[in-house]
Amino acid sequence: MSVTQEQSAASYAPTERTTPTRAKERAAYDHALVHSILDETYLCHLGFVRDAAPVVLPTLYARVGERLYVHGSSGSRPLRMAGQQDPGLPVCLTVTHVDGLVLARSAFHHSINYRSVVVHGTAHQVTDSEEKRLALDAIVDHVVAGRAADSRAANAKELAATAVLRIDLSEVSAKVRAGGPVDEPEDMDLPHWAGVVPVQRGYGELLPSEDLADGIDVPPYLKGL
Amino acid sequence: MSVTQEQSAASYAPTERTTPTRAKERAAYDHALVHSILDETYLCHLGFVRDAAPVVLPTLYARVGERLYVHGSSGSRPLRMAGQQDPGLPVCLTVTHVDGLVLARSAFHHSINYRSVVVHGTAHQVTDSEEKRLALDAIVDHVVAGRAADSRAANAKELAATAVLRIDLSEVSAKVRAGGPVDEPEDMDLPHWAGVVPVQRGYGELLPSEDLADGIDVPPYLKGL
Repeated sequence: MSVTQEQSAASYAPTERTTPTRAKERAAYDHALVHSILDETYLCHLGFVRDAAPVVLPTLYARVGERLYVHGSSGSRPLRMAGQQDPGLPVCLTVTHVDGLVLARSAFHHSINYRSVVVHGTAHQVTDSEEKRLALDAIVDHVVAGRAADSRAANAKELAATAVLRIDLSEVSAKVRAGGPVDEPEDMDLPHWAGVVPVQRGYGELLPSEDLADGIDVPPYLKGL
Repeated sequence: MSVTQEQSAASYAPTERTTPTRAKERAAYDHALVHSILDETYLCHLGFVRDAAPVVLPTLYARVGERLYVHGSSGSRPLRMAGQQDPGLPVCLTVTHVDGLVLARSAFHHSINYRSVVVHGTAHQVTDSEEKRLALDAIVDHVVAGRAADSRAANAKELAATAVLRIDLSEVSAKVRAGGPVDEPEDMDLPHWAGVVPVQRGYGELLPSEDLADGIDVPPYLKGL
């Protein structure tokens, strides 16, 4: 494979709807960046159309290669709709990290440092039971790496009560804003503090279940969080 | 006003689309809870329909009473669409806080503690210049309380380059999951750690702009973050 082919294989082709109408310099399409943004969290906002109106629901997801999986109750609306619709349910899946508050001297230039990914595509219900099981493991492991193997696997009844949607990564864009405020030259001497307030995420002290059996230690994958 | 009237005035009336098909006990409609969830952050995911397909974009917002305001470039898609469409652009605006990872003994009962608000409505472009200015101040103050007064206000050119959408809080629901894992009775003795990993948000050390003029102290509203 030539270098050119490798480079081209490592980017999503921009489309009309993944090309921003403004701040085009913030848009990116390379796989590595998109994957890193998707893999850093487990919560997305999934949009779909119902009765001609938009619906946006928070949901858990995981990436496996060039596929995203989201899961939900078999009875929930988007899952039911994707199962009933052929060839699938048009969706837009968006993931956003806020990295900082950007305080400029002017109100107008205030901003947010963020990294986001927007995925346009079609959600299909996963019907293959092996793929479904792998997807559910991936979602659990996406929330806490190593956890799927340290829990009781779903039984047939539980698998039936869970629906999984698959969305291929094809029409995808990332958007990133980083760095400090960009003020107008004539505002530089105004007496307002300017800079960035970093936004941080983390985990608090573990809260074991009150009914946790004696002798169960905190597993290594939780100590490293 | 009677007690009944007061209580009724303090809740959003459920509609077909704000009534969940499952986990109904997690749904809530009272103003106080909805407002507290909306006021705790500044980033929402705004969904709208374009060419019959869903689009979900992260955007800043603020609540002023029973109205939400979102803003963006006058050239951005949803802002342009809302300005062109009469009677406005159907939207779904969703805000989600993740409070904890819920680790159950069984993979199936893994969950997330969260608080979310879903707002269905119609976005209208704000054309009144005074309302627009108040909305922009509210958005800046929603990100950092007290900041709007400590920055150079938008001039006419900047106001023209910014579009603001208004969405009334009317068809609104909150959803909350709290507490520890709920495992099946037969799983209680399995050797898997169970409990909650609290998720925390916070701010890092301030990063002043490199070109910040001498003698500008960190303002009190930032010290309290």
